[in-house]
Amino acid sequence: MADSVTLSPGARIAEPARGEADHPHSPVVRFGADRPLRLDSGAVLSPFQIGYQTYGTLNAARSNAIMVCHALTADQHAANVHPVTGKPGWWETLIGPGKPIDTDRFFVISSNVLGGCLGTTGPSSTNPATGAPYGLDFPVVTIRDMVRAQSMLVEHLGIERLLAVVGGSMGGMQVLQWAASYPERVFAAMPIATAARHSAQNIAFHEVGRQAVMADPDWQGGRYLAAGTSPRRGLSVARMAAHITYMSDGSLHRKFGRRLQDRDGHTFSFDADFQVESYLRHQGEAFVDRFDANSYLYVTRAMDYFDLAAEHGGVLANAFRGTTTRFCLISFTSDWLFPTPDSRAVVHALNAAGASVSFAEIETDKGHDAFLLDEPELFAITRGFLDAAARGVGIR
Amino acid sequence: MADSVTLSPGARIAEPARGEADHPHSPVVRFGADRPLRLDSGAVLSPFQIGYQTYGTLNAARSNAIMVCHALTADQHAANVHPVTGKPGWWETLIGPGKPIDTDRFFVISSNVLGGCLGTTGPSSTNPATGAPYGLDFPVVTIRDMVRAQSMLVEHLGIERLLAVVGGSMGGMQVLQWAASYPERVFAAMPIATAARHSAQNIAFHEVGRQAVMADPDWQGGRYLAAGTSPRRGLSVARMAAHITYMSDGSLHRKFGRRLQDRDGHTFSFDADFQVESYLRHQGEAFVDRFDANSYLYVTRAMDYFDLAAEHGGVLANAFRGTTTRFCLISFTSDWLFPTPDSRAVVHALNAAGASVSFAEIETDKGHDAFLLDEPELFAITRGFLDAAARGVGIR
Repeated sequence: MADSVTLSPGARIAEPARGEADHPHSPVVRFGADRPLRLDSGAVLSPFQIGYQTYGTLNAARSNAIMVCHALTADQHAANVHPVTGKPGWWETLIGPGKPIDTDRFFVISSNVLGGCLGTTGPSSTNPATGAPYGLDFPVVTIRDMVRAQSMLVEHLGIERLLAVVGGSMGGMQVLQWAASYPERVFAAMPIATAARHSAQNIAFHEVGRQAVMADPDWQGGRYLAAGTSPRRGLSVARMAAHITYMSDGSLHRKFGRRLQDRDGHTFSFDADFQVESYLRHQGEAFVDRFDANSYLYVTRAMDYFDLAAEHGGVLANAFRGTTTRFCLISFTSDWLFPTPDSRAVVHALNAAGASVSFAEIETDKGHDAFLLDEPELFAITRGFLDAAARGVGIR
Repeated sequence: MADSVTLSPGARIAEPARGEADHPHSPVVRFGADRPLRLDSGAVLSPFQIGYQTYGTLNAARSNAIMVCHALTADQHAANVHPVTGKPGWWETLIGPGKPIDTDRFFVISSNVLGGCLGTTGPSSTNPATGAPYGLDFPVVTIRDMVRAQSMLVEHLGIERLLAVVGGSMGGMQVLQWAASYPERVFAAMPIATAARHSAQNIAFHEVGRQAVMADPDWQGGRYLAAGTSPRRGLSVARMAAHITYMSDGSLHRKFGRRLQDRDGHTFSFDADFQVESYLRHQGEAFVDRFDANSYLYVTRAMDYFDLAAEHGGVLANAFRGTTTRFCLISFTSDWLFPTPDSRAVVHALNAAGASVSFAEIETDKGHDAFLLDEPELFAITRGFLDAAARGVGIR
């Protein structure tokens, strides 16, 4: 059943609040004691805030807004230089003037998820009850909680209906949740490389990552911020293990094979002899500079808990009965984290629910990460789907 | 090129040396200063010892000996109760009276690999130069070094030619190395669920495990035995990550799915909500009680370095030119760690070398671990292949 929503009287597009004390890099919307967030766990989060970015201009009819949902370790910086890493936004391939998510036509909203660490309230935020960082006192959140928070942001921005919600991996879970929770507020939905529930294997990989973080003595039972430590080694190992799952066996072989760092041969030591080893070590080390360890625990947990059918009596189609949202699903042939059958299961449920749905499996060796990479077929499908959606709501 | 070998004059079957100070659980053969082991790294290991088990009786012609090679985290206790865990041997499904590797007919030898931790010299052994455990002063060893050591054991046992060498996973690498290094000493070879070289993805997973161990402060730069600590948390995380790779997505789904520990629902915490989480945690914790962390580093490294073609000018077939060894390879459909194409590559090379080779891909959802589990087709093929080999050397 969709959560009910009422637009605040006089809702308007927020002025960008750059320079706010809590997070200098993004506009932030704060929801005070009058707008508590009731979570699936039963806990109530209040106050809380959402850090976000927008790209493009909202049209007069407020009909051209596209919500972009980020994956596990990403953030709101989808199409701007990242304030911490200095690297391009994670979806600059897809979002920008003239690009498939065309900011000359569309108003794109990208927000940091609940539980995140770049402006939205999460475990590293200050717990108003104690004045110290929440740590593990932060309530466990779900994908549905994340989407509840996003819906409050969208409402705050004065947008009654999103032209589209688009996202890959955990972002795709949010897309599915948006369509299930707020069908009348989503004209078109594009879940990419995702699933309606997290598999046992995926839960297992997440559990390894969490145990790696929690095994690090510098994690300090979650109180590392107060202790002035950082579980860098544990978080780095977690990231290394996860990173393998984002690539395919084939892409690792193509990129690295058994090539050595030093052409002179094996060092007969535990140095990074193979290029794939130094690559992974670098991935681990770079990650800890931009991501909070407790956020990693909370956001992986949210993915593990995701099971859209379970919310609807065990029948996935029930999540979408009567929907008028148009769907376009995409999977990638070499994605073994969210393999094509996961997308097909959603397509079948949408068909059973009588929804409008198209589906494409894109041939690639790039694995799960393909949704972030240069995949011309992904670009073409996204452009075509969003163009049709725009025409559907009368945008030229 | 095969290493040359000379049987010691008067070589005889060693009396079991149970009760030796260095390892009370297995017979041990010591090689003194007169029998140094020259390693691929250039280092020389001397003295060193090998812990092993045998099952069945060597016949008068010494023609019924089968060498069984163990995988990464196993040991010589293939068909007896494990002295540490109290559990059945890792291949009791396959080895025993009347079983496919029939100890009523065959004399089975199973030895702990070089670098291991259950009787064979490894990083936890005493470094004669210092009187302290080797730690990282132990030389990095290769699969070929492991097989060199085994060949000295076999020679010590007075066996000129093995009826067969059999093993799965890293054990299969040793089988391939035996056949390449000592073709005249191997009548039949049975490499199961293995590859002639470790893939980039497999190296990557091993590197994650090593980093998890080395990230644990209790690892103490490898000197934890002297320091009186144990990197239990790091080794446990390493084992958890590895264990996922031994199972298939399908077998994890079948065994655990998204079933919860507690039927009342999610705890909204970081406890092990899902059965797959508590299973993995148990796997990690049980492992650290029976395995040495530095051995884990060394043995994974040996697997990473394995590349049989590279030892033969980059052409795998050259490893087997002129061989008279009979080969039987087996792979499992759901094994994504050593997938069927890895076995096919060996079969193609053997065909190119004109070798006698048969190959079976067994349909199963059990993943890589299938070689250790109840797989009737594996049992039938093993029985048939060894029976034919026995007839080939005139054993009734």
